[in-house]
Amino acid sequence: MSNFQWIDYLGLFGAFLSSITFLPQVYKAWTTKSVGDLSSWMIAILLANVSTWLVYGIVKDDFAIIIANSIIMGLSLLMVWFKFSFRKRD
Amino acid sequence: MSNFQWIDYLGLFGAFLSSITFLPQVYKAWTTKSVGDLSSWMIAILLANVSTWLVYGIVKDDFAIIIANSIIMGLSLLMVWFKFSFRKRD
Repeated sequence: MSNFQWIDYLGLFGAFLSSITFLPQVYKAWTTKSVGDLSSWMIAILLANVSTWLVYGIVKDDFAIIIANSIIMGLSLLMVWFKFSFRKRD
Repeated sequence: MSNFQWIDYLGLFGAFLSSITFLPQVYKAWTTKSVGDLSSWMIAILLANVSTWLVYGIVKDDFAIIIANSIIMGLSLLMVWFKFSFRKRD
């Protein structure tokens, strides 16, 4: 079944959804200035995870993986920043 | 470079890290019983994202994608449950 074209679109759709998963979390943290319930370990593992996939995407020359993980990397770094700057207001 | 064997191990390592990303978040939510700062939209998009990748993995017969996304699906459903059951304590 792997030569069906719809599956490639599904993969792109999955990459798109993966990219925007943390967008509402970053938005919520930004508007509430409250990040006390967010796990720092989750953010740390997310950074390791996304870095691994970025290297994978670059070596495999896979544009979808590179783009999706670059976006998630940006959102993760925003969460790191929020975790530090909103600390006193928790 | 795509026939280098190390890149396949890197992909498996990425899949492993992706699987455990939400483990500390679930653990934190469980111990603190506090999920007010977690975005419901993040969890909703995560569920859509993981469902898409599960279908993709099943159609492509990719064991790593199926296993990783099954674990993330389980952790996401735990977060949905926490979001509802810890609501009054926020």
